[in-house]
Amino acid sequence: MADNPLVVFTPSGRRGRFALGTPLLTAARQLGVDIDSVCGGRALCGRCQVVVGEGSYPKHGIESRPDHVGGETEVERRLRARNRKFAADRRLSCQAVIRGDLVIDVPADSQVHKQVVRKRAEARRIELDPIVTLHYVEVDQPDMHDPAGHFERLKRALAREWGLGDLTADLQVLQSLHEALTKGEFKVTVAVRGGARLLHVEPGFHDQLFGLAIDVGSTTIAAHLCNLQTGDVVAAAGAMNPQIRFGEDLMSRVSYVMMNPGGDKELTRVVRAAIQSLAEETAREAGVALSDILEIVLVGNPIMHHLILGIDPTPLGGAPFPLATDGAVDLWASELDLRLNRDTRAYVLPCIAGHVGADAAGVVLSESPHQSDELMLVVDVGTNAEIVLGNKHKVLACSSPTGPAFEGAQISAGQRAAPGAIERIRIDRATLEPRFKVIGCDVWSDEPGFNGHVTGICGSGIIEAIAEMYLSGIINQDGVVDGAFAERSPRVIADGRTFSYVVHEGEPRLVITQNDVRQIQLAKAALYAGARLLMDQMGVNTVDRIVLAGAFGSHIDVMYAMVLGMIPDCDLAKVSAAGNAAGTGARIALLNKAARAEIETVVHRIEKVETAIEPRFQEHFVGAMALPHKTAPYPNLAKAVTLPAPKAATGPSGEAAQRRRRRG
Amino acid sequence: MADNPLVVFTPSGRRGRFALGTPLLTAARQLGVDIDSVCGGRALCGRCQVVVGEGSYPKHGIESRPDHVGGETEVERRLRARNRKFAADRRLSCQAVIRGDLVIDVPADSQVHKQVVRKRAEARRIELDPIVTLHYVEVDQPDMHDPAGHFERLKRALAREWGLGDLTADLQVLQSLHEALTKGEFKVTVAVRGGARLLHVEPGFHDQLFGLAIDVGSTTIAAHLCNLQTGDVVAAAGAMNPQIRFGEDLMSRVSYVMMNPGGDKELTRVVRAAIQSLAEETAREAGVALSDILEIVLVGNPIMHHLILGIDPTPLGGAPFPLATDGAVDLWASELDLRLNRDTRAYVLPCIAGHVGADAAGVVLSESPHQSDELMLVVDVGTNAEIVLGNKHKVLACSSPTGPAFEGAQISAGQRAAPGAIERIRIDRATLEPRFKVIGCDVWSDEPGFNGHVTGICGSGIIEAIAEMYLSGIINQDGVVDGAFAERSPRVIADGRTFSYVVHEGEPRLVITQNDVRQIQLAKAALYAGARLLMDQMGVNTVDRIVLAGAFGSHIDVMYAMVLGMIPDCDLAKVSAAGNAAGTGARIALLNKAARAEIETVVHRIEKVETAIEPRFQEHFVGAMALPHKTAPYPNLAKAVTLPAPKAATGPSGEAAQRRRRRG
Repeated sequence: MADNPLVVFTPSGRRGRFALGTPLLTAARQLGVDIDSVCGGRALCGRCQVVVGEGSYPKHGIESRPDHVGGETEVERRLRARNRKFAADRRLSCQAVIRGDLVIDVPADSQVHKQVVRKRAEARRIELDPIVTLHYVEVDQPDMHDPAGHFERLKRALAREWGLGDLTADLQVLQSLHEALTKGEFKVTVAVRGGARLLHVEPGFHDQLFGLAIDVGSTTIAAHLCNLQTGDVVAAAGAMNPQIRFGEDLMSRVSYVMMNPGGDKELTRVVRAAIQSLAEETAREAGVALSDILEIVLVGNPIMHHLILGIDPTPLGGAPFPLATDGAVDLWASELDLRLNRDTRAYVLPCIAGHVGADAAGVVLSESPHQSDELMLVVDVGTNAEIVLGNKHKVLACSSPTGPAFEGAQISAGQRAAPGAIERIRIDRATLEPRFKVIGCDVWSDEPGFNGHVTGICGSGIIEAIAEMYLSGIINQDGVVDGAFAERSPRVIADGRTFSYVVHEGEPRLVITQNDVRQIQLAKAALYAGARLLMDQMGVNTVDRIVLAGAFGSHIDVMYAMVLGMIPDCDLAKVSAAGNAAGTGARIALLNKAARAEIETVVHRIEKVETAIEPRFQEHFVGAMALPHKTAPYPNLAKAVTLPAPKAATGPSGEAAQRRRRRG
Repeated sequence: MADNPLVVFTPSGRRGRFALGTPLLTAARQLGVDIDSVCGGRALCGRCQVVVGEGSYPKHGIESRPDHVGGETEVERRLRARNRKFAADRRLSCQAVIRGDLVIDVPADSQVHKQVVRKRAEARRIELDPIVTLHYVEVDQPDMHDPAGHFERLKRALAREWGLGDLTADLQVLQSLHEALTKGEFKVTVAVRGGARLLHVEPGFHDQLFGLAIDVGSTTIAAHLCNLQTGDVVAAAGAMNPQIRFGEDLMSRVSYVMMNPGGDKELTRVVRAAIQSLAEETAREAGVALSDILEIVLVGNPIMHHLILGIDPTPLGGAPFPLATDGAVDLWASELDLRLNRDTRAYVLPCIAGHVGADAAGVVLSESPHQSDELMLVVDVGTNAEIVLGNKHKVLACSSPTGPAFEGAQISAGQRAAPGAIERIRIDRATLEPRFKVIGCDVWSDEPGFNGHVTGICGSGIIEAIAEMYLSGIINQDGVVDGAFAERSPRVIADGRTFSYVVHEGEPRLVITQNDVRQIQLAKAALYAGARLLMDQMGVNTVDRIVLAGAFGSHIDVMYAMVLGMIPDCDLAKVSAAGNAAGTGARIALLNKAARAEIETVVHRIEKVETAIEPRFQEHFVGAMALPHKTAPYPNLAKAVTLPAPKAATGPSGEAAQRRRRRG
């Protein structure tokens, strides 16, 4: 008898000889080749598609031909008719049987552990391996000779067909079993969580499994609905955090709770309702049934974390800021009043410390300083900046109270990033005339077609305006608006005892005041001081790479952030924006179960630095008030842009006048 | 320097030398001596009492004297003043320090793993080792330098002081942590479940821990409230199962559900409400706060099991009687709508098969045939008799549809066991005159002082009446009431076409009719046939020991049960009544966590025999209609009582007359 045919699977390279007539899926499983399947080889799910190699493969010493697998079966014909993803050159590995030597390619979309595509080249790869998995199974019917319960017969079938070990089931699943089993004629699709818990049972074959990643910020809530079988984001939506009506920033919300007993329940109620709305909105947009969302992952700062969980955040309002827990929390979505599937679970990422929350843990998961060879500084810019510094040997974290200036609050012309907001500014070094770009208009203000709709200045616009004022000499290194320029340009005007710069004449008139500059200086000094404190702790004076995270961080020009001295000097090619990294971290934990264990371990390794009790923080803060810094060198920045020489204000400034008056 | 003093602990015999000044509790722990403590050695709980030996101990070669431990401390004096259990000869081992050689006796009540007293000498011993344990702990206060959350600091303290590993906590506990910790000034008492779950947190020192064992029968519900720190039953109560208004027996309740969609919800609601009432009643009686009941254990037949859990029992109404699960169920008491402590957990024993429920599992746990050297037959007599036969090598189980006759239903003069019910009967062999005993009166009916309050005949009275009628010859082996006796005694009277025996003349007049005899014959034949089927399966003709379980089983005279042939022949000295063994099994699972794992394993080992599809059941049933049996020998019974020789009815009986008529 001749040898059994040789079958080689690519890209894994696994190979073996199999008896004629063996289904390809069986061969693949015996070799440990990663091929997806929900239906367990019953040609229902169409996931186990492979491409049969055609031609001679000298490397393997065989010739592979399409007729070396059996002909197309009736179920494949039917599936091809209704499933356009089932291309002509593909076969279902559960249907195709071995008839001769074969080279079989398993395309990426047929692998269980697919790589999820990320836009940024440097970002960590995500392997699709969600905590919830679907398994179609045919259960033994109950029998007088077999006293096993429905649950035990279901477990037996799952062990037999899927190799799943002893599962647990909660009461609600036990309550639903008889109906699901009889409705599906003892064929059901089960969702299993963590390989250990029978999470949900659907009658018959059911191939829909989704998850929701939620980033609850103080200002906005972002939701990403993901297909847990492909890793794709099928819908995304954002909403204002409705808690804003109880207080713009976190501390005012905690104050609200302190002043209004039971107010935490109200804050909890509205934020949960907003999450429910986002779930419904994304599900509607993607045409997904809410009941097919079986897993959600949440991140948020410590106060959001507590409020979502229904834990009174009051203790976080004052030193020593004790968290109820810094560990990850795993619970029913229904415990958060979310009405998805009755069996939906929720996972909340761990916090790092009382001021460094699950959102920072999400940022760490997304940017992975703990896996980096280079020393990375990751800054999540918000009302509280969360700052992480580290590499694979050591990771430090702190938070720094930047205040809301970067978001346009407490700035005279400040507004949120919305149509009409100035987001880019350039000031002519000679004439001091500004030109700018406005959200909602593609051209600059001095270009043809500019629509003239200007309503205010958003955070990135303010950063650029003040950096450009500095580069133009309008403000000096100490941030003083130089009154001498009032004589050179109508853009610099006296404004009470200080001077302002007029960005936009018209309705409304938009100016950058001395106070605006001070607010940004305070914010950026806090940010820098936090980062610097971590660098001290790490014993370094420079970092290899900087990532700016947060919605705001992804809109600012990193060069201007450095001109202001928000961040330490660094090769500008190695400073990048990561967007909503906290939300990305939530998505990673949604798509890959090992990422949960990873972040739970990593947060314990992270050394927390408490800025509030660190005397050097004040020192660093004072030094960092200057632009970009009083003493720290910025050699990389100097290569990219000409920084003004340090100088005192040449003309009168309101502040100087005040000082003179006090002396007099 | 002289040797350190030698300390010997009794009864364990563990010994060691310790430095002067070592507290006895520390010494005991180092030696692994089993001494109870909730407060961890802070003289709060008073549980670690020991008796200091006085005198010479040649066996140990030392002299032990009370002054070899330090003098009574202030805290001991205070405790002695308020705790009468702290006798004069006792010391707290956490306070007494080693000053010289010592023999220290650890009294039974100071041991963690106390033996719980059971009344029956042959019953298995219960070692107190409940799944929930209390631990007083002092938690590190939150600190700016220590970012750990409350939960993590609490876990750290529990690991440090109690050696507890990584615990989980549910959301509700996390929500309560800050308040409990601050209220208790970071001293709390925690309840830990299974050594793995932080179940509940109380501020300060809190030494109250109770559990509830519930046996839900079709007719009655029995509750035992237990102190989980002593094993004592502190209160017991019973109530009618309020589901009775939806149907007397199980099948009529299932029919109700089938006929009334949603009716299962109503049955679930009323049985849960009854359990809640019993919890409240027992707690009130014992002066226990409901919130100190942190664990409950439930048993019940499969239909009660499903209804308690809120699972539709309809499938159990017809073949193949599939259970939703035959495994144990562990859940929140609140999922059963029980309002005890928010953190109370419930455990439901596993079922054995669709007709052999968690009550039978409780009986197995209580009577432990699986640990027996002798072959034991355990019969739980009820509307469905559950029958277990086995020894440590093999255990078989079945259920048999006896119907409600044994409980007095379908019997003309039948009533429940209540004051006025005849429970014992003797018939004079010569005069055929009866004498009886009535519940609520201590003397027999022919004795001075009999109160004459007679209302009916309860189950045990019916058993004895029919057995005595047989022993007196009034009925023959086939159960026919012999009309010939009507000529000898006014007690035997024609009653339509058959004859009856008058037990009580008066108001009401109580008779045993031919139909009553037939009902008991049907019931006892079913019981015997089930037992016999298991004996066939086991390949035996006799058993070594018989246990009658169930409220009814504990009231009947085992000799009469054997005269009727309810059970096979056996040495009467080895036939005993176990009372509510199902409830006892629930109590064992409440008091000893290992018993849960044990019964979960044992039920899987039990071979189930389905009487409904076993052809030999019918054969055995027919043979067992005769008294005590048509063919099976009863040598042990014959030694105890003179059985009548088999004979046909000598006079006319209604049945015989009927047969004659048909022939004619």
